[in-house]
Amino acid sequence: MRMSGSQIANPRLVSLPQFGDSRGNLVVGESEKELPFVVRRLFIVRDVPSNEERGMHAHKLCHQFLICVSGSVSAIADNGLQQIEVNLDSPTVGLYMPPLTWGKQFKYSEDAVLLVLASDAFDESDYIHNYDEFLNVVAKA
Amino acid sequence: MRMSGSQIANPRLVSLPQFGDSRGNLVVGESEKELPFVVRRLFIVRDVPSNEERGMHAHKLCHQFLICVSGSVSAIADNGLQQIEVNLDSPTVGLYMPPLTWGKQFKYSEDAVLLVLASDAFDESDYIHNYDEFLNVVAKA
Repeated sequence: MRMSGSQIANPRLVSLPQFGDSRGNLVVGESEKELPFVVRRLFIVRDVPSNEERGMHAHKLCHQFLICVSGSVSAIADNGLQQIEVNLDSPTVGLYMPPLTWGKQFKYSEDAVLLVLASDAFDESDYIHNYDEFLNVVAKA
Repeated sequence: MRMSGSQIANPRLVSLPQFGDSRGNLVVGESEKELPFVVRRLFIVRDVPSNEERGMHAHKLCHQFLICVSGSVSAIADNGLQQIEVNLDSPTVGLYMPPLTWGKQFKYSEDAVLLVLASDAFDESDYIHNYDEFLNVVAKA
């Protein structure tokens, strides 16, 4: 029987505070404040052709947090019950993707640099690469 | 009596692996591998005029790891016994700054974005803002 989804967390945008003065701008993110987890792994993604799509997977347990630190990139975050599409074009906004979120990133600008923060070390068994399998796992969650 | 410095860790450059293909380039950093700590806070620094200097402080306990994710920036890391000056111009290289490292960042390029990863939440009492005080603390470490 399909659950109501009450146990499925929602992906969401999170504002990151920025402090600016004549010496430049400083954006801050802190665990248990803006970041809902402690970071044990990070990716820096760049030089992505504008017609390419990246992501196309979900994690069973790993939390992720996406920050576009240069340029812009579009992202879809889908928890099997609802889907949001956002344009990330500032380091002052992060996209939080809880476990069991299917993610896709696309429309990278030429200067785009996407920072991906993850809660866990690499574990291939935590990845779900097939969307139908993802929906099955969500339905049983 | 001044210690030999054997307990003072050295700041150092760390290579971050990069995986590239037709879909772009992905740089990876993982705790207990490239990153000597778990990340509980991060800063994103940008729009810094090229004649400005940032940093100019040390931490008593907090570890930091600097990655220039766009453009370039020069950095000095000084543990009171030795000083290194580096030019950070690629996300594939990080500058690890152990506790009790005096840091200064300067010569930001116009497009520079500096990512600073930190091991601890914000704590004003962990900061040392005076260089002579820093040298005194190092001497007693």
